[in-house]
Amino acid sequence: MDADARLTQAAADLGYSFDAELRVGGNYVPLVRDDHVVYVSGQVPRVGDTVVVTGRVGDDVSLDQAQHAARVCAMRALVLLQRALGSLDEVRQVLRVTVYVRSAAQFTQHSEVADAASELLHRVLDRAGTHTRTSVGVFQLPKNASVELDLIASVRR
Amino acid sequence: MDADARLTQAAADLGYSFDAELRVGGNYVPLVRDDHVVYVSGQVPRVGDTVVVTGRVGDDVSLDQAQHAARVCAMRALVLLQRALGSLDEVRQVLRVTVYVRSAAQFTQHSEVADAASELLHRVLDRAGTHTRTSVGVFQLPKNASVELDLIASVRR
Amino acid sequence: MDADARLTQAAADLGYSFDAELRVGGNYVPLVRDDHVVYVSGQVPRVGDTVVVTGRVGDDVSLDQAQHAARVCAMRALVLLQRALGSLDEVRQVLRVTVYVRSAAQFTQHSEVADAASELLHRVLDRAGTHTRTSVGVFQLPKNASVELDLIASVRR
Repeated sequence: MDADARLTQAAADLGYSFDAELRVGGNYVPLVRDDHVVYVSGQVPRVGDTVVVTGRVGDDVSLDQAQHAARVCAMRALVLLQRALGSLDEVRQVLRVTVYVRSAAQFTQHSEVADAASELLHRVLDRAGTHTRTSVGVFQLPKNASVELDLIASVRR
Repeated sequence: MDADARLTQAAADLGYSFDAELRVGGNYVPLVRDDHVVYVSGQVPRVGDTVVVTGRVGDDVSLDQAQHAARVCAMRALVLLQRALGSLDEVRQVLRVTVYVRSAAQFTQHSEVADAASELLHRVLDRAGTHTRTSVGVFQLPKNASVELDLIASVRR
Repeated sequence: MDADARLTQAAADLGYSFDAELRVGGNYVPLVRDDHVVYVSGQVPRVGDTVVVTGRVGDDVSLDQAQHAARVCAMRALVLLQRALGSLDEVRQVLRVTVYVRSAAQFTQHSEVADAASELLHRVLDRAGTHTRTSVGVFQLPKNASVELDLIASVRR
C-alpha cells in the first residue's frame, strides 16, 4: 500500500471525508513551495464547514478528543500535500511540525496530544513522516479550535 | 509603482514613519539570510520607542485596533527586508507568516487580525506577497504588545 | 577554545551534566537535517528525568529562574546539534530561535527571558550563534515547563 492508499485508509478510520475543497479562508494560501521545501499553513480540525473539536483542552475537551483533533489537523495537512504534489510519495521528509493546543491552566499533556498527529504522519508517510516537533499550550485558537498544526516538509526534486 | 513605492505609500496610509532605526533589542538580529531564504525576527507594533497597540485583543483592544497592530508588524518586517535587500523587488516569495495575537479568553477572530497583515503584504509585494500563514492566540507578548508577527521569505539569488 | 570546549564550559557553569541520553519522548525525533538546514525539536529545560524549572513566569517563577530555564533549553539544543554533527564547529549559522515563555497575565519580559538563551548561543557558537528570534508568552507548556525553545540552523556542507 502506498502513501496515498494509506491516506485514504486513515481518512476512513477517522470517519471523515476530505474530498470537499479544503477552505483555508483569508488572504493567504494553504501551501507554498520554495524549491524542494513546502510550507503548509496552520490547520484547525475543520471538516467541510465545521470545526469538529472546539473548546479548551483539559477543561471542556478531553485528551482523547484533543488527540482526535490533532489527527484531523494532520489529515488536512496531508491532503493539502497530496493535492499539491500529485502523490504523497513525493514527500521526502516532514521537517518540522508545530502543534498548538488550546489549554486549560493546569493541562500539561501537550506532547500526548501532538503524539496523535505524529503517529498519523508516520502511519501514512512511513519513514518520510519522521519529523521534529514543537508543542505548546496557547490561550485561544481561530474559530475556537482546540488544536492547530502547521508543518514544513521537503519533497523530491 | 514598484514594491518600494508601494511600501512608502502604505507607511503614509498608516500615518507612521519607519525612517528611524528599527530597534529590535536584545542579543540577536532582526534578519538572517541563508542562501536565498531570509528569516525575519518577531515584530511587535513598535514605531520609534512606542508600542502603538498594547493590551488584550477582545478585551481592552478591539478587532480594528488589532488589525492596525498587525499592519504595523507587517510594515516593520517589510522595512527590514527592504533595508537588508536594497529593494523589495528582491523578494521572490513570502513563505511563512506566523501571527501571534494576545487574546481574551473568548476571542476567536485571530484569522481576521492576521488578514490585515496578509493584505498589506499582498498590497506591497503583489504576487510575491502570497504566503502560508499560522495565527494563534497567545496569553502575553513582549512589551504587552497586542500582536507579534514573524516571517520567512525567499529572495532572488 | 573551540565551540565544543565552550559548550562543555557552559554546561559546567550551569551545574548540570548533559551526558545522559537526551530523551525527547513521543513519536518524533530531536533533530532532522535537510541538506544544509537542521531543525531541532522544541526543548523544555529537562536535565535527565527532571524538568528543572516549572510553573508560570512572573507568578511562581522569577525572571532569574526563567532565564536559567532558557539557558538549559538552549544547552539541550546545542548538545543535540553537537551529537548529530560531531562538532559544533559544523554549525554555520543559527537561523531562527523561537522562545515560548509560560507567562503570568501581567508578565511582559519575554525578551529578557529569551536574551539568556541568545547570550548562551553567542557564547558557545560565537558569530555562528547570531540568529533571528521570536519570543511569545504562552498559557501552558509540556510537563508544566516554564520555557520551551526550538531552533533552525544552517550547517557546513
